[in-house]
Amino acid sequence: MRDFSQDHRWLSINTATVRKSRGVDLPLPRIIEACARRGIRAISPWRDQVAAAGLDTISRLVRTHGMELSGYCRGGMFPAVDAQGLRAARDDNRRAVDEACELRAACLVLVVGGLPGALAGMPAHKDIALARSQVRDGIGELLDYARSMRMPLAIEPLHPMYAAERACINTLEQALDLCDELDPGPSGGEPRTATAALGVAADVYHVWWDPKLKAQIERAGKRRLLAFHVCDWLTPTTDLLNDRGMMGDGVIDIPRIRGWLEDQGFGGYSEVEIFSSNNWWRRDHGEVLDTCIERHRRAV
Amino acid sequence: MRDFSQDHRWLSINTATVRKSRGVDLPLPRIIEACARRGIRAISPWRDQVAAAGLDTISRLVRTHGMELSGYCRGGMFPAVDAQGLRAARDDNRRAVDEACELRAACLVLVVGGLPGALAGMPAHKDIALARSQVRDGIGELLDYARSMRMPLAIEPLHPMYAAERACINTLEQALDLCDELDPGPSGGEPRTATAALGVAADVYHVWWDPKLKAQIERAGKRRLLAFHVCDWLTPTTDLLNDRGMMGDGVIDIPRIRGWLEDQGFGGYSEVEIFSSNNWWRRDHGEVLDTCIERHRRAV
Repeated sequence: MRDFSQDHRWLSINTATVRKSRGVDLPLPRIIEACARRGIRAISPWRDQVAAAGLDTISRLVRTHGMELSGYCRGGMFPAVDAQGLRAARDDNRRAVDEACELRAACLVLVVGGLPGALAGMPAHKDIALARSQVRDGIGELLDYARSMRMPLAIEPLHPMYAAERACINTLEQALDLCDELDPGPSGGEPRTATAALGVAADVYHVWWDPKLKAQIERAGKRRLLAFHVCDWLTPTTDLLNDRGMMGDGVIDIPRIRGWLEDQGFGGYSEVEIFSSNNWWRRDHGEVLDTCIERHRRAV
Repeated sequence: MRDFSQDHRWLSINTATVRKSRGVDLPLPRIIEACARRGIRAISPWRDQVAAAGLDTISRLVRTHGMELSGYCRGGMFPAVDAQGLRAARDDNRRAVDEACELRAACLVLVVGGLPGALAGMPAHKDIALARSQVRDGIGELLDYARSMRMPLAIEPLHPMYAAERACINTLEQALDLCDELDPGPSGGEPRTATAALGVAADVYHVWWDPKLKAQIERAGKRRLLAFHVCDWLTPTTDLLNDRGMMGDGVIDIPRIRGWLEDQGFGGYSEVEIFSSNNWWRRDHGEVLDTCIERHRRAV
C-alpha cells in the first residue's frame, strides 16, 4: 500500500469541496490556482463550475498548470417521464463526454438519477424498478458514444439514502452487475485494456457500510476501479446531503478501504469530495485545502 | 393478496407512532385504550413505554382488550467495548425475551447495534467488522435462551444510514445470511415449524431501496418473515431519524412490497411505525390513529 504520510502527490480535490469560501461562491479558476499553489496535482471539477468559467478557459488553465482530472462530475440523471426527457438526458450526457474529453479527464463520473421529479420534491411515480431499467438503457446507449471517444464511464453507486432523488444504483454489487451486463470482459483473443470502458467510482461515504464492500472491490479489480473518493461519515450526521465530514473526523476506516483497492492494483488519486454547508463551506478555502492536505497524509 | 380496503383488521400500531400527542409524552395505557376504542387489534410497544407503566399493568391491559402484539420493541444493541458491556447487553436482552413472553408477543424485534458509543456521538472505534462479529455472537447466544422460551427473534435490518449508530445489519440479505448460519433449517426427519426461531422484520423504510429486495423476500419465505413494518420515505427527508412519512405520502410502493411477502404466505399484521418529531408527534394521537386506519386501507 502506498505511503501517503510524506507528501500529497496522490491527493485530488473534487472542486465541490471548496465550492464556497467563507460562504461565498468561489469561481473554478481561483480553485485551480489555489490547488496549483499548494502542489495539488489533480482536481475533479463539476460541470456547472466549468460552464460558469467557460470550458476553454478551464481547459487552458488546467494545461497551464499541468493538472490532471481524476474525474469529471458528472453525467447521469437518466430516468425521465417521457421520450423527450430521455432524449434530453442522452444529449446532455454526450455533451458531458465531450467536455470530459476536452479536459482530458480520467473518467466521466455517472450519478445515474432516481425517480423523475423526486429531486424537485415532486416524484412522478414510485416505480424504482422502472427507473433502474431506464438507467441501464441510458448507460448502454451512452457507452457506445463514450467508447468511440475513448472516455471511460464510472458508475458511482450512491448511498441508499439518495435512492429516490439522486441515484437508484446504491451498491457496488449493483453497479458491477451493470458493468458486467453492458461491458463484458474481453474475450479470448482480444487485448485486455488497462482500464475498462465502464467501471465504478468508489466513494467511501456511499459504500463504507456495505457488508459486501471488500468482496465487491475484489470483484471489480483494477480494470473497473476508475475512481476513489474520500471524506468521512459523522456521528451524528445532521443533514442528508450537506454534512459530510473531513477525513479523520468520522467513523469510516478509510485506510482499510484504500488498502482493499490497492490490493487490486489501484494506483490512482484519492479524491476529496466534501459537501458541507454547516462547516467547510463557511471557512476560507485556503484553510480547507490545507486541511485536506494534512488529513490526506494522516487519515487516508 | 389480502384486501385491506374494507377494514383494518390487519393493522398494528407500533406505539412509537403515538409516543407523543400534541408534543407531550403519551403513556402506553392511554395508547392501548385509544387503539382498542378504534378496533385496532394489535400493537407493538417499546420497552421504555412498558417500563414506565409497569409490565404487569400493560400485560393486564393487553389481555383485557384481547389485543395481540405483532412484535416487541426491542432487543439488540449487542456490540460493546469490553466483556462487561457484552454481558450487560446479554442480560438485558434476556430480560427483553422474558417481557416479550409475558406480553405474548409474536416476536422480539432486534435492532442489533452499531459501533459502541456512536449513538452517544463518541464512537469507540471504526471497526464495523468487529461490531458485526459481536452481533453474530450475541444473537447466537440469545437464540439459545429465546428458543428455550419459545420466543422468535426477528432481526430488523436498518437502513444503511443507521449503520454507525443503531444497526450494522443493513440489508435483508445480510440478516438472512445470519439466520441461515445461526438457525439452519430443520434437517430431514425434524418437524418443520410454521415460524423459524430466528427470522427477520422487514420494514419498508429500511429496505425499499434494495435492488435485491424481492429476491431476498423470496429467500426468506414464510418461516422467516416474522414482521412487516410500514411507513413512507419522504422527498425530501429532512432528518435522518425523525422524518418518516405516513403511508401514501412518500415514494415507497408499499402494496407491491406487501404483495411480495404475501406471495410467500405471509399473513400477519402491517405494523405502522412512524417517528416524526416535525409532524405526527405534534398532532393529537386520535387524529394520528385515524389517519393510520385510513392510510392502511388505501396505501398499504
